[in-house]
Amino acid sequence: MKRSSLAPDFFPELPIIKGVQFATGQTGIKYIDREDVMLAKLSPGTTVSGVFTRSTTRSASVLDCQSKIGLSTDQGAAILVNAGNANAFTGSNGQASVDRICKALGSTLDLPKSAIFTSSTGVIGEILPDHKITDCIDELKNTLSDQSIKSAASAIMTTDTFPKGSSATLDIDGKKVCISGIAKGSGMIAPDMATMLVYIFTDAEIGQIDLQKLLQDLTNRTFNCITVDSDTSTSDSLICAATGTSGVDVSKSSKFSQSLKSVMLDLAQQVVRDGEGATKFITVNVTGAASNKDAHRVAMATANSPLVKTAMAGEDPNWGRIVMAVGKSGALINCDRLSIWFGSHLVAENGRVAKNYKETFVAKYMKQTSLSISIDLGMGKSLGTVWTCDLTNGYIKINADYRS
Amino acid sequence: MKRSSLAPDFFPELPIIKGVQFATGQTGIKYIDREDVMLAKLSPGTTVSGVFTRSTTRSASVLDCQSKIGLSTDQGAAILVNAGNANAFTGSNGQASVDRICKALGSTLDLPKSAIFTSSTGVIGEILPDHKITDCIDELKNTLSDQSIKSAASAIMTTDTFPKGSSATLDIDGKKVCISGIAKGSGMIAPDMATMLVYIFTDAEIGQIDLQKLLQDLTNRTFNCITVDSDTSTSDSLICAATGTSGVDVSKSSKFSQSLKSVMLDLAQQVVRDGEGATKFITVNVTGAASNKDAHRVAMATANSPLVKTAMAGEDPNWGRIVMAVGKSGALINCDRLSIWFGSHLVAENGRVAKNYKETFVAKYMKQTSLSISIDLGMGKSLGTVWTCDLTNGYIKINADYRS
Repeated sequence: MKRSSLAPDFFPELPIIKGVQFATGQTGIKYIDREDVMLAKLSPGTTVSGVFTRSTTRSASVLDCQSKIGLSTDQGAAILVNAGNANAFTGSNGQASVDRICKALGSTLDLPKSAIFTSSTGVIGEILPDHKITDCIDELKNTLSDQSIKSAASAIMTTDTFPKGSSATLDIDGKKVCISGIAKGSGMIAPDMATMLVYIFTDAEIGQIDLQKLLQDLTNRTFNCITVDSDTSTSDSLICAATGTSGVDVSKSSKFSQSLKSVMLDLAQQVVRDGEGATKFITVNVTGAASNKDAHRVAMATANSPLVKTAMAGEDPNWGRIVMAVGKSGALINCDRLSIWFGSHLVAENGRVAKNYKETFVAKYMKQTSLSISIDLGMGKSLGTVWTCDLTNGYIKINADYRS
Repeated sequence: MKRSSLAPDFFPELPIIKGVQFATGQTGIKYIDREDVMLAKLSPGTTVSGVFTRSTTRSASVLDCQSKIGLSTDQGAAILVNAGNANAFTGSNGQASVDRICKALGSTLDLPKSAIFTSSTGVIGEILPDHKITDCIDELKNTLSDQSIKSAASAIMTTDTFPKGSSATLDIDGKKVCISGIAKGSGMIAPDMATMLVYIFTDAEIGQIDLQKLLQDLTNRTFNCITVDSDTSTSDSLICAATGTSGVDVSKSSKFSQSLKSVMLDLAQQVVRDGEGATKFITVNVTGAASNKDAHRVAMATANSPLVKTAMAGEDPNWGRIVMAVGKSGALINCDRLSIWFGSHLVAENGRVAKNYKETFVAKYMKQTSLSISIDLGMGKSLGTVWTCDLTNGYIKINADYRS
């Protein structure tokens, strides 16, 4: 698969997080000639928080992770991820596979089963041949290294066209704290949950409950504000592990939560930039809403509209379709107060086309690869932003024959 | 535009409804070399009912129609429809245009303005040059004929690839009652309203309030159960006119409501068959739901899922995506009770792939142009059906350059 035209130029240099080691391997479950499994080993005392999909058909590994978040990780913990098979809708086989993987890995790493978190993404409904994973465990253990986060980011990809990483290094009271995160995701990306697979590591010191609260709040403002195709995965998982190895307590640090948010937002936007078939990166800003819920609703209705997305693909400033999306969103509006911009070009105001609107100028703007749509409802002071991509032949092509 | 491969072989012979006359003409507003305006004149005493989009950015003509439904049509009534310009989001110009059209037409036909119903579909946000319509009114009046319903069905089309008509003739106590309907619609088709433009005429005798109730109920079971692309139009209107010229009171006739439903369902399904870029006609049946709302929700989540729709386009029995859609629907489910069929092929049961599932058989079934997806939730006794089409390159092509 050709690298997305919206991809960053290169994978960033991610700071090493003391207390986290990675290993990657090949199980051969679906892909050949590439690594498809990754292990992250977390040192004793690491706190682990997680946010997961709210789909009612979520996978066995998601259900298993949810049951473990908050249990003791005093002896350390581990995360194991395989790509190519989602282990979702596999009946009782699903949990049995997860159990066998956790038991084998726990025994090899000398950890309780309850401190092993797994994720699986790929085709739904196929039984996971978990022995192909457990067969790799010894090799994974023997190749653990704190240098391998880039390989880890690559090993978890499915239809992704590039590995996704982001980091922050901050200074708190003269001491250095690092955050390094990786993500995968490209299609079946929709809001209402933590989106896709995301693993974030930090050497900060923070309690599990504080980290969990922070993670949930930031997820609502980052991963839950992106959409590629309005379809919600059965596997979406975001796990954040804080090793505490920096010795810096960040539980009350706004600097830390800002930095964590910027890493999460960067990863979320990279998922959109790898949206299946995407050629445009689109920011939808809504202001003047009567409530935050209304702002989000209008932004999502716009970002998920196939007609808006195809207009962007066609570089057509067809703002009437944005009016349509606002109208179907269910938010409180008054047509006569509605304004719409493409970039800085005001195209509509007071319930009709803007006085000085010149389609030729705006048509030129639409040729950019990063576009913004701004909508002011004029109803109140709430606002919200959502990030999405366009809808192209590429999306159809990828998804009309994903499995073949 | 090439005629949809899912189109019926020909436009049906529609019975003449005594008391209804049609005329069509060319305004040149958007299209050249084709008729783009139609007039239907209704005889004195005709009852007129209507169901309209619930979009909050609905067009001036929709708002105007809604304000008139239920007012007296003792002197008769008229419906005027133009194609190519939606007269939506045109500020105060919108209502002013509608007023001028209604005034001119009312004066020509000797009818009160309150008995003139208008519809406009096409591009949103462009001022309607209503003088191009009023200029045609004399010619329209002079060419009125009870024979011209097929021309009327063609004149209201926009991205449609075929005119849509349906009829029923029924015998009530030895007397004949006829129903003839026409519709337009192809993209921006989603539920939660009366979908697109639909005009149904009958010589039955029925009071306005009875007809309105019946129409609303039947809309929920027909037009509100179709979706092409999840996008809701600003113009959707369904108007039903009963002239009473048969002299048959149908206010308590279940035969009449059955026939009216069959005409509405046929028209609704023809809209789906003309879905932009459609190559598959898909019926989604949900049974065993805990409530009717849940059944509809699961069916709609499946029918609107880009991943399900592209799998159908690719003739790929990728039932895992149906599991995904059920999971994101928000309906009450239990994975272990979920069953899924393609046509009569059971593909999943008890929360996993069916025991005797053979993908080769099902892959063969997927090559048909009419496909059914059946989902049993095993949670209760409620059921629901939704009709949709697949998502193909054709949809992207049409909508990435609709205006150019």
